[in-house]
Amino acid sequence: MLLVVSTSVCVFCEIAAGRSDAELVLESEHCLGFLDIRPLFPGHCLLIPRGHVETLPELSEDLVAPLFLETRLLSKAVPAAMGAQGSFIAMNNKVSQSVPHIHVHVVPRNRKDGLKGFFWPRHGYRNDDHMRETGAAIRAAVQELR
Amino acid sequence: MLLVVSTSVCVFCEIAAGRSDAELVLESEHCLGFLDIRPLFPGHCLLIPRGHVETLPELSEDLVAPLFLETRLLSKAVPAAMGAQGSFIAMNNKVSQSVPHIHVHVVPRNRKDGLKGFFWPRHGYRNDDHMRETGAAIRAAVQELR
Repeated sequence: MLLVVSTSVCVFCEIAAGRSDAELVLESEHCLGFLDIRPLFPGHCLLIPRGHVETLPELSEDLVAPLFLETRLLSKAVPAAMGAQGSFIAMNNKVSQSVPHIHVHVVPRNRKDGLKGFFWPRHGYRNDDHMRETGAAIRAAVQELR
Repeated sequence: MLLVVSTSVCVFCEIAAGRSDAELVLESEHCLGFLDIRPLFPGHCLLIPRGHVETLPELSEDLVAPLFLETRLLSKAVPAAMGAQGSFIAMNNKVSQSVPHIHVHVVPRNRKDGLKGFFWPRHGYRNDDHMRETGAAIRAAVQELR
């Protein structure tokens, strides 16, 4: 008889539990910040809620302020520590999300650091009607989801 | 005599004041959401606090929850309205920031939509010591700024 045991371990939950090493930069009641091991630039941090939550839409209302207050703190601390001019804050939900445990990227930025092209390519609206229809669809979804 | 008058008008404050048009998608007490006129993809929204604040480090503590609760709402509404698989949430502080009034990008994402390369190029750590020293510098900045 062949017994197949499927185990699914979240690498960020392992860090939060202290079972995996990470270069921690911030610890609070609800959050943990650590260095990304494949940084865009040195000092690139990831900030996670300690509990497992997959994406921003699934984050409970009471964790929004704790997570983003610490994001704000890192948006000050990372440029200060790295002598950088600014920061890039980003989060991928589902698509391009390498680990399915919500994480905010806080990346130190400097002018002419080579990242200027990341907001590209752009795909515009076909015409004004297309833009208005898109706005109407999102307004309707906002109303429904409030 | 030549009189030079310097006027500096914030385009997002003009939208918040109702003096400039925008395709609004969300209005709340503290925030305003509207379509980016140069979208990465149709449905790309910008979310701003109504009052003028330049960057995330300067956002007052009491506005963090209102801004990011509405970001969370748009992270549900935009993919729902656009039939997208996920979202990209981003904010540039100082560097690559086109308008110096804090704005959160909420972009609908789909697999193989052509944006997979935006987190590139990566610049890693020279060695383990470099990573540990970087972590220590950010931890110190976090302690100082708390």
